Amino acid sequence: MASDSGITPRETDYSQWYLDIIREAYLADYSPVKGCMVLRPDGFAIWDAIKTDLDRRFKETGHVNAYFPLFIPQSFLSREAQHVEGFAKECAVITHHRLRAVTRDGRTEVEPDPAAKLEEPLIVRPTSETIIWHMYARWIDSWRDLPILINQWANVVRWEMKTRPFLRTAEFLWQEGHTAHATRAEAEEEARRMLGVYADFARETLAIPVVPGVKTANERFAGAEDTYTIEAMMQNGWALQAGTSHFLGQNFARAFDVTFQNEAGERELVWATSWGVSTRMVGAVIMTHSDDDGLVVPPKVAPLQVVIVPIWRKEKERALVCDFAERCRAVLAGAGLRVHVDDRDKLKPGAKYYEWERRGACLRLEVGPRDVANGSAFAKKRTGGDKFGVALEGMAERVQEVLDEIQAELLARAVAHREANTHRVDDYAAFKAALTDQGGWYLVPWADDGANEDAIKAETKATIRCYPLDAQDEAQGRTCFYSGRPATHMAIFARAY
Amino acid sequence: MASDSGITPRETDYSQWYLDIIREAYLADYSPVKGCMVLRPDGFAIWDAIKTDLDRRFKETGHVNAYFPLFIPQSFLSREAQHVEGFAKECAVITHHRLRAVTRDGRTEVEPDPAAKLEEPLIVRPTSETIIWHMYARWIDSWRDLPILINQWANVVRWEMKTRPFLRTAEFLWQEGHTAHATRAEAEEEARRMLGVYADFARETLAIPVVPGVKTANERFAGAEDTYTIEAMMQNGWALQAGTSHFLGQNFARAFDVTFQNEAGERELVWATSWGVSTRMVGAVIMTHSDDDGLVVPPKVAPLQVVIVPIWRKEKERALVCDFAERCRAVLAGAGLRVHVDDRDKLKPGAKYYEWERRGACLRLEVGPRDVANGSAFAKKRTGGDKFGVALEGMAERVQEVLDEIQAELLARAVAHREANTHRVDDYAAFKAALTDQGGWYLVPWADDGANEDAIKAETKATIRCYPLDAQDEAQGRTCFYSGRPATHMAIFARAY
Repeated sequence: MASDSGITPRETDYSQWYLDIIREAYLADYSPVKGCMVLRPDGFAIWDAIKTDLDRRFKETGHVNAYFPLFIPQSFLSREAQHVEGFAKECAVITHHRLRAVTRDGRTEVEPDPAAKLEEPLIVRPTSETIIWHMYARWIDSWRDLPILINQWANVVRWEMKTRPFLRTAEFLWQEGHTAHATRAEAEEEARRMLGVYADFARETLAIPVVPGVKTANERFAGAEDTYTIEAMMQNGWALQAGTSHFLGQNFARAFDVTFQNEAGERELVWATSWGVSTRMVGAVIMTHSDDDGLVVPPKVAPLQVVIVPIWRKEKERALVCDFAERCRAVLAGAGLRVHVDDRDKLKPGAKYYEWERRGACLRLEVGPRDVANGSAFAKKRTGGDKFGVALEGMAERVQEVLDEIQAELLARAVAHREANTHRVDDYAAFKAALTDQGGWYLVPWADDGANEDAIKAETKATIRCYPLDAQDEAQGRTCFYSGRPATHMAIFARAY
Repeated sequence: MASDSGITPRETDYSQWYLDIIREAYLADYSPVKGCMVLRPDGFAIWDAIKTDLDRRFKETGHVNAYFPLFIPQSFLSREAQHVEGFAKECAVITHHRLRAVTRDGRTEVEPDPAAKLEEPLIVRPTSETIIWHMYARWIDSWRDLPILINQWANVVRWEMKTRPFLRTAEFLWQEGHTAHATRAEAEEEARRMLGVYADFARETLAIPVVPGVKTANERFAGAEDTYTIEAMMQNGWALQAGTSHFLGQNFARAFDVTFQNEAGERELVWATSWGVSTRMVGAVIMTHSDDDGLVVPPKVAPLQVVIVPIWRKEKERALVCDFAERCRAVLAGAGLRVHVDDRDKLKPGAKYYEWERRGACLRLEVGPRDVANGSAFAKKRTGGDKFGVALEGMAERVQEVLDEIQAELLARAVAHREANTHRVDDYAAFKAALTDQGGWYLVPWADDGANEDAIKAETKATIRCYPLDAQDEAQGRTCFYSGRPATHMAIFARAY
């Protein structure tokens, strides 16, 4: 049941809370096409900020952008054996290239034109390995052509039956890096490097302390030899896979016959990686930081960093406070901050405060006649705490400091939450009891075994999120919490989106 | 016939020259999907620079970005009567949402799963008016909700039979602005404002002196009341429509039942505009500025602004010149310039010059041992002229000045070319003779008449590109060059892409 704000408290119904936030903060809306959402301007702005920051990191690590076709010939999907299993199932299939108008009962309607059936159906890309490796076969001939370090920002479609805004939709926006290398070592290094880029980005920009790790064979990408992941903990203790990086070995090179002449003059198959993050990250941001009052987003990706609310009672005060508010806005905008003056008529300041809290403005500046006289505004952080004055003189620097504080606070909270909800258990009975009782993540010694993984999933709905990279030393000499065999890894088990 | 460079001279075959430039400068490649091209990194970089600059201009004029679904229910296309005519014809139609694997002769193939047929087919957006106005119906209730000033960066698909890279492809990238207003005047002003944004952008950033004007009814967008255009002259004297802005009246509001309550409490239909430019602009840039030696692009959108070629004969010189080249690179990159050091082994400096000329690097800096001793590099502009020295001290400022010079030169050349090839004629016979003889554009007095327009097109292949905004006064008191009736407009006739 929603409160007055229209937002269901997290305690009452976490899933509904998430949907309420998205609606009340105008982040996304449902479209008339099943499973496809509309990214409204504020929701898109978060993605745009993510994109700008990641794009810079990709370029700093030597990558360039390109663009490959939306459509993939149906036959391409059957080239890589595992890939067809993983991706050929639920996808959008194009069979005709024309509609025709037909008149029925005096109404004109349209329908696929039977005369315009495609010889070979096309599918809308669920991911682009196949078409990209088809092109790489044309571009790669010698070791001099390697490495190829290409990234693509694109939309992809996977026909999902059960959707949730941002987290799982039929169409979504993402980036997909596809690299080609002369050696295994170089490709493996690339896959790990991009995992590191993602992990740093999530922590520094999104204030999400993700855990980087390796997926088990069960959870691997279709066609990969190794799948690396960053896993984020949501406020309900569930895990969310926020990005993946794959070492693809020579599987796609073999399927698309991509070889190169090495320096010794011999032909070899090319080594590959791919890596991607999507608009799912926007869902991770919302779920990690927001509260029962509405959206909370880290300043680095917030649609609005500062909202200025001028306050007047008498008409003659209005020009005074609005003028001062505009001067504040100009100073902050000039420093590159995202700032807005809410000077709407006939809406009380309290109603404005309330609205901007719901919509996640990071910092509110109130400007009344007395503030103008003092040459300052009265500030309130979205993350709480007492109000404080900020002088117009030096305002840009001071506000940037406060935004940095907010960014750091959000990260500290998320780290504390993750630590408080990550548990270490040694035996399966204790794990089951704790999972039911308190949820969260479980770091356990584990003997790698797909069948056991399936059995635990069937019984508890928990899956192995990853083998965290920085915890593997701990497995030595320990016993698997489930099978009792010698542990091969430390694994994180959790419920996941 | 191509020269040694692999590039056919313009005089020999202008169309082939264009395709040769695209191939030799690695801008695009053909994909296995008919009509869909691959934007290679250098081609994509031009689009990315266009996008960044335009996006800033859109935001400065109050617009925000959003994202709407790729798919549109088939029935939406029949809502707006003219729109169905214009767009329901050649498009990609999705009829199934799953493939199934079938084994034939021991081979696994995939095919659309008959059990996964969609109830209503979907089409891949050819443009997004219909789905966006469906959403606007949900978002607009009162005058307070207006205006809506949304832009979308997206891919669209129109099933073109005859394609040409960048200029006409089945899938292309574009932006589409879709705005909603309370009054006709405000919507008309918006349509003209965005035309102005496009015209300024083309001139200032792409060095293309486009002519802004109005389209005739024959050439109007399906569903628009007025279509504005920017027309660019290519080097062969043909016109290329480089962007359009539409005043849509209340047509889409009527089709999707989008009304608002005005301040007087009455319900009214909403007024609309839409406007877009696409990757076609990349084609316009290539065609406007390039020459028989390869790609020429204005520095503001060039994939590579500066290439540095270190020159050494003896191995002991190598470290010296490469070190100096790297210092130059660091200085230029630090100033935000796109710069690359070509230190490839076993490739002579001459071969490198030749390659970077083909690929359109705006400025080449040569660094030999004597240059290092002088603390300077030897510079050569892609647009020609003598070589000149550029000292490392103050290099970033000096190089930026030179790039600005190149940008200005390219604009001046394009203006001169357009002026030399724009002719004024008063009678049809003279027009026909001149068009055959010398091509180019013809600014003529004209009595608006769609049938006459068709007749002229049938006879000469020339169409009315636009009624140029700044020439309409000239029509007063004159006689139509074709019908002899009183002129209503000044029109530009030309062959067009």
